[in-house]
Amino acid sequence: MARQIRVGMVGYKFMGKAHSHAYHDVARFFDLTAEPAMVALCGRDEAAVRAAAARFGWQGHETDWRRLVARPDIDLVDIGTPNNMHAEIAIAAAEHGKHVLCEKPLAMDLDQARRMKAAVERAGVVHMICHNYRFAPAVQFAKKLIASGDLGEIYHFRAQYLQDWIMDPEFPLVWRLQKEVAGSGTHGDLSAHIIDLARFLVGEFDSVTGLLHTFIRERPLDTSGEGAWGATATSPRAKGPVTVDDAAAFLARFRGGALGVFEATRFAGGNRNGNRFEVNGSKGSVRWDLENMNNLQVYFHADAPGRQGFRTINCTEGGVHPYADHWWPPAHIIGYEHTFVHLVAELCGGIAAGRSPEPNFTDGVRNQAVLEAVSRSSESGRWEPVAEA
Amino acid sequence: MARQIRVGMVGYKFMGKAHSHAYHDVARFFDLTAEPAMVALCGRDEAAVRAAAARFGWQGHETDWRRLVARPDIDLVDIGTPNNMHAEIAIAAAEHGKHVLCEKPLAMDLDQARRMKAAVERAGVVHMICHNYRFAPAVQFAKKLIASGDLGEIYHFRAQYLQDWIMDPEFPLVWRLQKEVAGSGTHGDLSAHIIDLARFLVGEFDSVTGLLHTFIRERPLDTSGEGAWGATATSPRAKGPVTVDDAAAFLARFRGGALGVFEATRFAGGNRNGNRFEVNGSKGSVRWDLENMNNLQVYFHADAPGRQGFRTINCTEGGVHPYADHWWPPAHIIGYEHTFVHLVAELCGGIAAGRSPEPNFTDGVRNQAVLEAVSRSSESGRWEPVAEA
Amino acid sequence: MARQIRVGMVGYKFMGKAHSHAYHDVARFFDLTAEPAMVALCGRDEAAVRAAAARFGWQGHETDWRRLVARPDIDLVDIGTPNNMHAEIAIAAAEHGKHVLCEKPLAMDLDQARRMKAAVERAGVVHMICHNYRFAPAVQFAKKLIASGDLGEIYHFRAQYLQDWIMDPEFPLVWRLQKEVAGSGTHGDLSAHIIDLARFLVGEFDSVTGLLHTFIRERPLDTSGEGAWGATATSPRAKGPVTVDDAAAFLARFRGGALGVFEATRFAGGNRNGNRFEVNGSKGSVRWDLENMNNLQVYFHADAPGRQGFRTINCTEGGVHPYADHWWPPAHIIGYEHTFVHLVAELCGGIAAGRSPEPNFTDGVRNQAVLEAVSRSSESGRWEPVAEA
Amino acid sequence: MARQIRVGMVGYKFMGKAHSHAYHDVARFFDLTAEPAMVALCGRDEAAVRAAAARFGWQGHETDWRRLVARPDIDLVDIGTPNNMHAEIAIAAAEHGKHVLCEKPLAMDLDQARRMKAAVERAGVVHMICHNYRFAPAVQFAKKLIASGDLGEIYHFRAQYLQDWIMDPEFPLVWRLQKEVAGSGTHGDLSAHIIDLARFLVGEFDSVTGLLHTFIRERPLDTSGEGAWGATATSPRAKGPVTVDDAAAFLARFRGGALGVFEATRFAGGNRNGNRFEVNGSKGSVRWDLENMNNLQVYFHADAPGRQGFRTINCTEGGVHPYADHWWPPAHIIGYEHTFVHLVAELCGGIAAGRSPEPNFTDGVRNQAVLEAVSRSSESGRWEPVAEA
Repeated sequence: MARQIRVGMVGYKFMGKAHSHAYHDVARFFDLTAEPAMVALCGRDEAAVRAAAARFGWQGHETDWRRLVARPDIDLVDIGTPNNMHAEIAIAAAEHGKHVLCEKPLAMDLDQARRMKAAVERAGVVHMICHNYRFAPAVQFAKKLIASGDLGEIYHFRAQYLQDWIMDPEFPLVWRLQKEVAGSGTHGDLSAHIIDLARFLVGEFDSVTGLLHTFIRERPLDTSGEGAWGATATSPRAKGPVTVDDAAAFLARFRGGALGVFEATRFAGGNRNGNRFEVNGSKGSVRWDLENMNNLQVYFHADAPGRQGFRTINCTEGGVHPYADHWWPPAHIIGYEHTFVHLVAELCGGIAAGRSPEPNFTDGVRNQAVLEAVSRSSESGRWEPVAEA
Repeated sequence: MARQIRVGMVGYKFMGKAHSHAYHDVARFFDLTAEPAMVALCGRDEAAVRAAAARFGWQGHETDWRRLVARPDIDLVDIGTPNNMHAEIAIAAAEHGKHVLCEKPLAMDLDQARRMKAAVERAGVVHMICHNYRFAPAVQFAKKLIASGDLGEIYHFRAQYLQDWIMDPEFPLVWRLQKEVAGSGTHGDLSAHIIDLARFLVGEFDSVTGLLHTFIRERPLDTSGEGAWGATATSPRAKGPVTVDDAAAFLARFRGGALGVFEATRFAGGNRNGNRFEVNGSKGSVRWDLENMNNLQVYFHADAPGRQGFRTINCTEGGVHPYADHWWPPAHIIGYEHTFVHLVAELCGGIAAGRSPEPNFTDGVRNQAVLEAVSRSSESGRWEPVAEA
Repeated sequence: MARQIRVGMVGYKFMGKAHSHAYHDVARFFDLTAEPAMVALCGRDEAAVRAAAARFGWQGHETDWRRLVARPDIDLVDIGTPNNMHAEIAIAAAEHGKHVLCEKPLAMDLDQARRMKAAVERAGVVHMICHNYRFAPAVQFAKKLIASGDLGEIYHFRAQYLQDWIMDPEFPLVWRLQKEVAGSGTHGDLSAHIIDLARFLVGEFDSVTGLLHTFIRERPLDTSGEGAWGATATSPRAKGPVTVDDAAAFLARFRGGALGVFEATRFAGGNRNGNRFEVNGSKGSVRWDLENMNNLQVYFHADAPGRQGFRTINCTEGGVHPYADHWWPPAHIIGYEHTFVHLVAELCGGIAAGRSPEPNFTDGVRNQAVLEAVSRSSESGRWEPVAEA
Repeated sequence: MARQIRVGMVGYKFMGKAHSHAYHDVARFFDLTAEPAMVALCGRDEAAVRAAAARFGWQGHETDWRRLVARPDIDLVDIGTPNNMHAEIAIAAAEHGKHVLCEKPLAMDLDQARRMKAAVERAGVVHMICHNYRFAPAVQFAKKLIASGDLGEIYHFRAQYLQDWIMDPEFPLVWRLQKEVAGSGTHGDLSAHIIDLARFLVGEFDSVTGLLHTFIRERPLDTSGEGAWGATATSPRAKGPVTVDDAAAFLARFRGGALGVFEATRFAGGNRNGNRFEVNGSKGSVRWDLENMNNLQVYFHADAPGRQGFRTINCTEGGVHPYADHWWPPAHIIGYEHTFVHLVAELCGGIAAGRSPEPNFTDGVRNQAVLEAVSRSSESGRWEPVAEA
């Protein structure tokens, strides 16, 4: 009988739903030596959190995260709150000896991220950051190709994370558009993801130059409580200032010598969730797009002349594609939520073994260092070095 | 508190896993007035079925389906066995007053299918057949476009279901390749799916002409127990005859006047699970491909000249795309298994309301009538009428 | 200095323009031992043919094809007229000792096609039929892959030629919709092309079953003179019967054992010129689409597990892709008209060498035999054998 | 009868072939009031230029461009030489009163470009720069959509020009890799193209920050004379320094408020000629890729909810898509070389009318100003303003 990992989770909106599903399903598809038990869901609005707990399958609920992190029957605290709460909760959880899974971006700034890392390391608990896209099988397969040298020396990494859900000027001023809650806008939300993919696939950043830009500077105030897609203004007349970026773009030099080009925006009409990258190496290339996330486009220069071209590999084959054994036969595709199941499976394995799987808070700190260097560059107009972890 | 539907399921391989997942997850994503309870999983090999029950989350298990269908604590019998067992189990379940969900194809032949339909109707139980692909949101959206007249009069339906998992002559003689167990080969397995999509979208068949063909007529005997992908021959020297078709192709005339072209094969190298259709009407067209199942390609003739072209619509938008409200924000894609969740949600609604949602055994009979008309045509070399339901 | 081939061409509409371009350009891109000279263009309307000759770069014109084929200063007669004139002109040209290039379909029926073939063989002249799509580099490359055995034993050929230019019921009754001028409709126009591709790639047909269908049976009379895209009714009130098929669909068995599925229609909205095929063999597959005609999708089963997938090969690389040396650097794509240039280059080479390159009138006869077997089957409702050549 | 424009062209390699084709074909497809006459081709190697003149259809040849530009029977001088010769030839041609078409980039630096512009303006001759990709019908159609306001306010322009033909370290040191001949590497060759597309579609640049990078710093010396694809080292042992960039990347702010992200490289394996852009505006978006250059992907936010998605518009429809009337029916695609035919048609019209169509030397200067600002930024590490024209 598998050991239990008793989970308490803070947050019950989009990420709360996605994480809940992962805890609910992971043991149905993975053989785990430690399995999650969904003990308590936490949120400030009792009626709402009670309903969410019932819907998502949690045994109980809490309305005060300080009580949650102190409960002796909790082993793992999962943080899916707005960004300004990550540090306080994570540090308190660590101090109570809880393992911690935290949503991205890790913190409001690099200093805060470093304090979070120090806290989990001091406490000796297992920690991870929820960069779930690493766990798409096609991304893991790309990693294997690069790590094995099959793409050769890496020359280029280019990535775009393009969305369009706030293009309407009447879209309200949700928390993700407020600097004091979100820390940054598109940058911390979307750049953070493609920075993580770059670090995973190509390695550490050396320096960056970039810009952050806000297209629509004032929006209707919002009291509906929804943080993202589909929010509507409850008081369309009253407006407030948008204090975060709508778009971010930056160039990078990697320590290994590769060049990077990055763009993230919520103003790319028709791109609902276009998270795309391409890596070019001396022996081959790969391309990926979240909207067709099961496919990896792969080019091998070693293919015979006249027979070279990008192959569309559907990364769903057991035995050869990461995680594919756990699901369905070839080309019976999986979706967005499965990336969380894979991440939670790794986390459970890490807790069982007493180690922190990647991406963990060290990755969170390094990611934050890149985000922050870009922000600095947007102010200075210069190339900025990326701080060491 | 939702009423419970106590489920007993027969079969625990590929379909057993897919159905189990749907029962496990459906109430996490749908508000149901009657929710499934996973009471008992049934299979002949006790060690295997016990392990599967534990893995998939069933409360108990049975080794004799006759006991299962007789249990008073079962409301719904779900049949995921090889095809030659469908009729006997379904009829017995109905006679015990159980609701029935049956995998496709419904039966070994049309006569058997009709007896199954008669049994469930006589018993007054709710019944469905598991044509899950209807429940891809993009397919449901195509149905809405057609039903609303937005594609106009339908002229053409063309569909291909292309796989390649038995192309190796050393792939063993699994049950799906044995007529006495499977009834037919590619035809009942894959043609049945595209016939269902055609009936769903375009309506009833009038007549067909077609062929069934077997490319590899002898294969290694198999005792490994796996029925599909990844099976390996346990006794490669001993061979037996393949008694079903490897490929099926047929033309059709629909009662509404449309023309149909259908092809199903397991010998289309590189097509792992290519289930594709296109519908052309006087006002527009739609295209779908299971391997990118979230997308529907849509063409509207009413678009302005010069601006006409197939649109790639990612059918993941809450409020406008069927079932999308239950999952994630736009373009956070869902996968193969979700089609079963949708089907089970409809089934639970049907049981709560006392009606049999489509596709039900009437659809199963009509589908079987088409399958059988094609088989007859393959023998006669002529157009064959499709029998009435 | 290259020898001259003095060309006289009958017809100056769509095909007249395409062939003229090929004669005008071929010697700029190919080293020919015999080069075409554009001597005379022929058509019944003198003002129109004179203007076309000037526009397309012909030295002179004729208004009576009987005079043209008798002119001593003509070596090659190119026939781009409506189908009902092919036989008479071709036979007369051959009797005058002229080489003959004829548009497809070769004839109004198989008997006529055979008489044309007999005439050119009796006269000992060089002959070709203008199935230009064979000469797309990607199609030629597919042929090389099949001929070299790289796709193994061929199991499946499926092709669709989908257009939509006559879907409007007010589109007029152009000559292509009149049986006495066109012989057939979509069938002779579009089926003929995909039959040729099938014969080129997979070999001879054994037998077929199929249907021809007309969706719109009456159309406005047309006197505008245009035969295809963009024609408009000059007398919208007066209508006449459509006497040809709007759509054709058929199944085939090839002599080599492969199965074929074919569909051609002018009622597939949004498919402007969708000429597509896929070939599946025991070792690999290829896919092609005229609308992206430079690309060939290729799948090799011998690729390592996990690395299998269709490659997109842009067939524009000199040294390895047929005809690519004559044009531009890799991925600087060529277009529709280049297929005619390649065909004319082959024809010039054939005339220089005294042989008839494929596809020639023998191919035209065999193609007609398939067309006719499908037409017979559409009447008989049975499989029909394809006549020998 | 159309007036003649007597052309003398300098250069007979890749661009010489492409321009020759355009002069040869333009009057066959366009009604021109002034038609080109191919009078003389110029190059230093007499045997080679004579052969090229015969192949491409020029009436004569010259071996000294100074003689060519002085010939009284020449109206237009077309410059397709390596970049270091553009200025001298263009200025001399203008001084002799010749109209000038010059390949891109216009000059070796901004100062030189300005002197060229001054020369043609002083002489009152017609001038153009050969940014041929503007003349793809899909690009022209994108321009129409933007100019008409159908995409709304423009927020983003992103473009990549990705090639891979020099990735092999043994690829020789052709002139395009030598600063004294080419001026720059990928930057002047490929960045220049996407800068032109950006200026055409979005308007003038305000400022840029970027980098130029060389991956392989030493290559075999080359004496084969070929400048690009397929060159081979004639003396593989002797090596020399690569003095230009292999890759360029930069961010831009446009004067109209849009943000730009640009990348050009010859080290993107598998991208033979991937010239791609996307424009996002408040009302819609467009995407284009040279490798499928007939298609434009278009997204309109005004489409009904649930029916929004990028449309694939094949820009080949007469009456609605620019230049399409001159070629073939819908979806009978055109290729790379047609862009030159369109440009030459515009040039002929300009000469007939006495005006310089865009892109002309003013565009060449502005393009050079962007190129140079990026180069400065690559040195300074800062944002650099783009000079006025």
